[in-house]
Amino acid sequence: MGGDFAPEAAVKGAVMALDAIGAESRIVLFGDEQQIRAVLASEGCPAERFDIVATTEVIEMGDHPAKAFQTKSNSSITVGFGYLARGGIDGFASAGSTGAMMVGSMYAVKPIDGVIRPTISSLVPTASGHPALLLDVGLNVDCKPEVLAQYGVIGSIYAETVLGIAKPRVAVLNIGEEETKGNAQTKATHELLKAEPRIHFVGNVEGSHIFSGKVADVIVCDGFVGNTVLKMAEGLYRINKALGGGNAFWDAMNYENVGGTPVLGVNAPVVIGHGCSSPKAIRSMILSTEQVVKAGLTAKLRQAFQN
Amino acid sequence: MGGDFAPEAAVKGAVMALDAIGAESRIVLFGDEQQIRAVLASEGCPAERFDIVATTEVIEMGDHPAKAFQTKSNSSITVGFGYLARGGIDGFASAGSTGAMMVGSMYAVKPIDGVIRPTISSLVPTASGHPALLLDVGLNVDCKPEVLAQYGVIGSIYAETVLGIAKPRVAVLNIGEEETKGNAQTKATHELLKAEPRIHFVGNVEGSHIFSGKVADVIVCDGFVGNTVLKMAEGLYRINKALGGGNAFWDAMNYENVGGTPVLGVNAPVVIGHGCSSPKAIRSMILSTEQVVKAGLTAKLRQAFQN
Repeated sequence: MGGDFAPEAAVKGAVMALDAIGAESRIVLFGDEQQIRAVLASEGCPAERFDIVATTEVIEMGDHPAKAFQTKSNSSITVGFGYLARGGIDGFASAGSTGAMMVGSMYAVKPIDGVIRPTISSLVPTASGHPALLLDVGLNVDCKPEVLAQYGVIGSIYAETVLGIAKPRVAVLNIGEEETKGNAQTKATHELLKAEPRIHFVGNVEGSHIFSGKVADVIVCDGFVGNTVLKMAEGLYRINKALGGGNAFWDAMNYENVGGTPVLGVNAPVVIGHGCSSPKAIRSMILSTEQVVKAGLTAKLRQAFQN
Repeated sequence: MGGDFAPEAAVKGAVMALDAIGAESRIVLFGDEQQIRAVLASEGCPAERFDIVATTEVIEMGDHPAKAFQTKSNSSITVGFGYLARGGIDGFASAGSTGAMMVGSMYAVKPIDGVIRPTISSLVPTASGHPALLLDVGLNVDCKPEVLAQYGVIGSIYAETVLGIAKPRVAVLNIGEEETKGNAQTKATHELLKAEPRIHFVGNVEGSHIFSGKVADVIVCDGFVGNTVLKMAEGLYRINKALGGGNAFWDAMNYENVGGTPVLGVNAPVVIGHGCSSPKAIRSMILSTEQVVKAGLTAKLRQAFQN
């Protein structure tokens, strides 16, 4: 029931995902059963291809996330997180209230022991053809260097496990290549990551190389900077599209192809979609969630942070 | 003598600028007189069209900026700043060592009384056709809100005086439109700018609207963020160009058309060019320097900060 075009876009996207999802995977739809069945019927898709969990409430964009998560206990987001927390599903994705999705991530599935602050990340396209993982993209601002250093480890595990990159190149987003460049936060983060034996740290990456793919597979930054980078990319994508400059690089920048924003560092796969998600965007989001589940990312992260 | 292709590119660019510079303006060339005259001859340009001040030394990119500025007292940058400080010239531009240019700005012409920290800025193209002024773009990181609030005033005066925008819209680069969004720095800056009577403050601008032109003419941000925005734009420009997506918007992103980086908040017009400046870039830089001189920007800034 999440997103500006729910439930139509969500159900249509789920139907579209059937063509690519693994034979052993099953999509569970949480929402108004009647509406779900109506969309499936209009799509000519047998309802048996999905599991449907009927919910009766909807967390609206205007609702206070934490309050709504608790009081609307029969909303698709709250019920979904209940299933996720007790293992009824393996991963949860929604284009609904980002705030409520974060409340569910933090209070229902909870941060992994040892992770100071979970993060939201984004895959960005690069000119090399392989995406890079940028984190944090807006959950945490004024990050302590210790938090950013953990993002280097989390991102490296994601890139290795989910994207299949051996020895991913981890870098700190900075305003110079030299070690001594940057603000207090990035200088300290650089020091910590340099001493981190579990990752392949390549030093600083400048803004000019976020999208070149030449320097890093995993780019660590404060949520303020990451959010600005992401929104700036979206803005330039829109300008470029309006000007008619279509090509594979800019197409990959389209949020519909990105697959949502993974919440990393919590005890189960959670992916948050754009509020205005189209069916195509929902399809990408479901498939990227399946990818994280299949890769066993959560177990790998737990292992890395257990001490 | 500054820049990777000096003095050829500098002299050629100066010759190119003659076609657009005002009848009452005069370009003064600081550098190796013999080399300057040789390039002018090869360009078929009479040397009388310029004033030439012969210098014998060159501050190299590898030199320590502050030391070189002092010890190489007959370098084009040091001599040029001498002329600027005592009014022998009205504005100074160079594609040479950025560090030495900043040393000259801070110690030869000095900050304007009342300006806490001078800033470097950049004009960015927007989809609306009018450029926006972004500041700071890398001189000051970990900026105090008081410093950023002054950048709002400085940027507003620049936009009004030099760009001819009446009541320029001033905004804080932030990760949300709402007043309560952001990090500690941007929230405090927002408060200060809201209370600033000398500017037309429009609130926050998100990364998605830096290049749309829809929200702001002057965008205030910490130098870390501004530098990242600028370098990211350069990187995307290069990717876009390699993919063949040429159009007026992206052409305007080309540093050759930008006209260099004005140093704002010091007692004379100073413009710093890209180290790899081509003749075309030098031409733009000279013309943008002339524009700042003609607009009487320094006097307007002095007036604003005198109490």
